[in-house]
Amino acid sequence: MRVFGIDPGSTVTGFGVVERHRGRYHYIDGGFIRTHAQTPMGERLQAIHDGLSEALQRHTVDAVAIEAIFRHKSSESAIRLGQARGVALLAVAQAGHTAVSYNAMTVKRSVGAHGRADKKAIAAIVKMLLGDIPAGPGDVTDALAIAITHLAHGGVKARLEVAR
Amino acid sequence: MRVFGIDPGSTVTGFGVVERHRGRYHYIDGGFIRTHAQTPMGERLQAIHDGLSEALQRHTVDAVAIEAIFRHKSSESAIRLGQARGVALLAVAQAGHTAVSYNAMTVKRSVGAHGRADKKAIAAIVKMLLGDIPAGPGDVTDALAIAITHLAHGGVKARLEVAR
Repeated sequence: MRVFGIDPGSTVTGFGVVERHRGRYHYIDGGFIRTHAQTPMGERLQAIHDGLSEALQRHTVDAVAIEAIFRHKSSESAIRLGQARGVALLAVAQAGHTAVSYNAMTVKRSVGAHGRADKKAIAAIVKMLLGDIPAGPGDVTDALAIAITHLAHGGVKARLEVAR
Repeated sequence: MRVFGIDPGSTVTGFGVVERHRGRYHYIDGGFIRTHAQTPMGERLQAIHDGLSEALQRHTVDAVAIEAIFRHKSSESAIRLGQARGVALLAVAQAGHTAVSYNAMTVKRSVGAHGRADKKAIAAIVKMLLGDIPAGPGDVTDALAIAITHLAHGGVKARLEVAR
């Protein structure tokens, strides 16, 4: 089973593709789209959408997993995150998939991290599980962790956790 | 000058096209995309994106105006609003426009409503300004009010208020 994971964000959107084979996780691909605060939001969202669409087209996957909606400090930053998540979900739908979502706590538990583990701790665990992976921002290892979460759940939550 | 206004929302996204000619406002078009809570979010966002793209393609406009990011009750609803706003901004960018944004207070002031005016009061004023317009949800009159706001500002704020 091969899963495409997405960690959306208006500044950096990470993605990662992981395969599970004979109980082991294998790194297939990973990458990110970085956009700049000075660029009009429409263009930034277009870069995120087109970058993800291109990556989704490159891989034949069984499922797409994305971070769930979570409580956020400010509503402005929540709306900005929502905008990036919106174009990500659109790219996923256009690629013919229905995104499954997992909250941060489930992701941490699934990779074997404790509840207060930060991006750096997640990255260390992901690297332990996947072996040598190219260097990149924490958003890529977060996306890989989301893909691993879906594989750890064996896809059984797919019908219950459709992204909202 | 002709302006395309958008009032994004995950349940109902309204749009409206208004022209200003010799100091008077004229209704050109209006409509909305309604999506259902039971439908996976990816499909809902696809409907919003495709509906807006189709409407933007039908009209040659000088500018596109959208409601600004504002404070929201809960971060979950802010993220949902952001998702709809994200695919709306994407459709606008794909149509070759850079959306200009106005906050709710500016919109109310521009159409001559008081600060606490609700959707119904805005609708009444919009109908007064535009004359006979087809019946529809308040999201359409809100979108028309946003278009009127940009026309009332004569497009001068365009470079300052690029949507974020």
